[in-house]
Amino acid sequence: MSYAVLAASLRSAMQRNDQSAISHVVSEMQPADIADFARYEPAYTVLSLLMLLPEAQRGPTFGYLETEQQRDIAEKMTDEELAKLVSSMDADERADLFHLVEPGRQPAILRQLSKRERDDLRKLASYEEGTAGAVMTSEYVAVPEDIDVAEALSLLRASAPDAETIYQIYCVDVQGRLKGAVSLRQLILAAPHLPISELMVEDVVFVTAETPQEEVSRLIAHYDLLALPVINGGERLVGIVTYDDAMDVAEEEATEDMHKGVSIGKLEGSLRSASLYELYRKRVVWLVLLVFANIFSGAGIAHFEETIEAYIALVFFLPLLVDSGGNAGSQAATLMVRGMATGDVRTRDWAKMLGREVGVALGLGLTMALAVSVVGIFRAGTEIAMVVALSMVLIVMVGSLIGMLLPFILQRFNVDPATASAPLVTSIADASGVLIYFALATAILGLPS
Amino acid sequence: MSYAVLAASLRSAMQRNDQSAISHVVSEMQPADIADFARYEPAYTVLSLLMLLPEAQRGPTFGYLETEQQRDIAEKMTDEELAKLVSSMDADERADLFHLVEPGRQPAILRQLSKRERDDLRKLASYEEGTAGAVMTSEYVAVPEDIDVAEALSLLRASAPDAETIYQIYCVDVQGRLKGAVSLRQLILAAPHLPISELMVEDVVFVTAETPQEEVSRLIAHYDLLALPVINGGERLVGIVTYDDAMDVAEEEATEDMHKGVSIGKLEGSLRSASLYELYRKRVVWLVLLVFANIFSGAGIAHFEETIEAYIALVFFLPLLVDSGGNAGSQAATLMVRGMATGDVRTRDWAKMLGREVGVALGLGLTMALAVSVVGIFRAGTEIAMVVALSMVLIVMVGSLIGMLLPFILQRFNVDPATASAPLVTSIADASGVLIYFALATAILGLPS
Repeated sequence: MSYAVLAASLRSAMQRNDQSAISHVVSEMQPADIADFARYEPAYTVLSLLMLLPEAQRGPTFGYLETEQQRDIAEKMTDEELAKLVSSMDADERADLFHLVEPGRQPAILRQLSKRERDDLRKLASYEEGTAGAVMTSEYVAVPEDIDVAEALSLLRASAPDAETIYQIYCVDVQGRLKGAVSLRQLILAAPHLPISELMVEDVVFVTAETPQEEVSRLIAHYDLLALPVINGGERLVGIVTYDDAMDVAEEEATEDMHKGVSIGKLEGSLRSASLYELYRKRVVWLVLLVFANIFSGAGIAHFEETIEAYIALVFFLPLLVDSGGNAGSQAATLMVRGMATGDVRTRDWAKMLGREVGVALGLGLTMALAVSVVGIFRAGTEIAMVVALSMVLIVMVGSLIGMLLPFILQRFNVDPATASAPLVTSIADASGVLIYFALATAILGLPS
Repeated sequence: MSYAVLAASLRSAMQRNDQSAISHVVSEMQPADIADFARYEPAYTVLSLLMLLPEAQRGPTFGYLETEQQRDIAEKMTDEELAKLVSSMDADERADLFHLVEPGRQPAILRQLSKRERDDLRKLASYEEGTAGAVMTSEYVAVPEDIDVAEALSLLRASAPDAETIYQIYCVDVQGRLKGAVSLRQLILAAPHLPISELMVEDVVFVTAETPQEEVSRLIAHYDLLALPVINGGERLVGIVTYDDAMDVAEEEATEDMHKGVSIGKLEGSLRSASLYELYRKRVVWLVLLVFANIFSGAGIAHFEETIEAYIALVFFLPLLVDSGGNAGSQAATLMVRGMATGDVRTRDWAKMLGREVGVALGLGLTMALAVSVVGIFRAGTEIAMVVALSMVLIVMVGSLIGMLLPFILQRFNVDPATASAPLVTSIADASGVLIYFALATAILGLPS
């Protein structure tokens, strides 16, 4: 049955408060879809829905919810309900939940777990947010490097029910150090008595627990990996990050970069769940800073007051010219920022990119100057049209070069290039544009005597 | 060994033209890394490098190259070299290559293949670009629904060497219609004589060959799938899309959306490989259109010529005010566009989003008005400062609402919401801003008599 039909039956069963019908419908639904449905429901409704779910679905469904909603629900849970939830979760999501509840309730979670699970949780929960350690899971399959294929397969069967993936198997020495990896595909095709050490790939791509999660996600995408092993300082295998978590990280990063592109700070939850105050706060900082940055444009204009008074028609073209510089600059900045994020452009390419940008921007400037000349001659006469056209070429070129170089400069000073946002580039390009325009006008038209 | 060390040895071996050293180094490298290295080399160098690779690495390495470079290399290949390459490729990449070569050389590719592979290729190559059919592969594992676990495992072993993934197995009826799916994990844990039909999940998420690839990538991410089955009109299973191809699609989509956000058309290859003319062409169209859109601002200003002549100081604040409206509008538009792309915001949420935006924009407008008042009083006196502050509130609100509503309106008319780019929103917000500002000024300050 389709999601829409199931969601409608679930809604109707919930309105009738018919628990057996609810249980029946959710048993047909995927955890991701139950979470999608729950997204628009109040916390107490979702909590009772979670408790009606079979154990195997409860943890995954909770895991798909937004962080904000998870926190609301966790707050409303009794210790007993929290216990029921914790026991049905994967190790990495359990660690996230542990971060989410008030410190006073953390012991209630720990009490539900075996000694081994408890140690795991403490370890996973101790890594800093945004690192490989914080997104990895400790539920992977590791086998000693000195066994054979048949032994590895039976070890695999034993750990399969708990492991997050059984399709990549890691080989470790007696100290637990990562020595190699085999895929389940290789194991299934190999002769039963072949030693694992002859089958395994030794040159495994790995990260440390402190590696930033963007790098983790980039490596997984680059090498098309199912999972990426994580080691600690002593080269011991401590966890894996699976491809699905890497996809979530990549989506988050892309969203963050797009928001930075228009000077919006990082939202904690989703756009829907963000409070009005949070949205205000994340947007206002840069807008106000840009108000002050724009004062340079104002000061520039004040300097040319006499020219403006003599040729009021110059003002007609002011928004057009400053916008064009800003637009071309934003394009150049976005191309560079995205190119750097995907690894297409590297810092050392700046000179080559600069050369190309000069060429492209010159072409753009000339075309736009041509377009604006037509309007200019018609509206303000040949002389002003000439000033406007010449200004357009210079403004588009200066704007483009600012937009193109700013990401490289920020990168050089270890600031995220995505900070070279459209509004920032626009404001800088504007101030330059005003100066270029009125300086050219004063030079060409002359001051009235 | 690290990538940097290997790349350096490879470069030195290539400079010495030492073929055995080259072969030795590349045998230690991953296909993704060889492709990374090759990215900056001319086509003939890459071609000779490819021919030195062992068969198992040749196809995958070629697959990781940019489309532009693939085309250049394919053009330089002899039919014999093309044949060597084709035989080492996966079915989906083979279909991409087939699209890439000139039609006259397509028979040279077909000749290398068995009858079954030929039919496969023709089928895969016939789907439209951007659809599930064009990204799927025909190398999946399908088993009859009426066999048991042990039989399924031995079928799996037989197809494992060719299949793109063996971790998801699809169950089909005698007509080849998709009936269910089992994971290799389930098979390995199940009793050997259990019928597959009792183990399989019947409610499989699938798409048709015509489904747009963004939807495919969204489903794979949403349900954390390893692979998504593709069926044709008759419900017959025709292919699968694997998670790694979905990750590539998601990255491409995010890049496209970011470029659209600043009005850049879709680039065919990467930023590095794009020609100057292509970059010019993809950027110029909207920039010139926006020049003409901006003429409304100019016309608005001309209408208020007398007011401006009387109060030249009004011009100082013009770039600041129009920029602020544009910046706030771009923020609102980007939040909505990205929210829609990730499925966080749905079309029917527009009224709720509008209500929230009014609240946030009012807060932003008041804050920015306060900031600008300080500068205004100091630079132009209380009266003009009041006009500027009041204009700021209105302009930021109007700009934000335009930015927020435009993506919904575009969506309503089946235009990609990402077209609601910063430059477009800025231009519309500018024209409104100019009108609001000078109309308020004329009303409050009055015309000189």
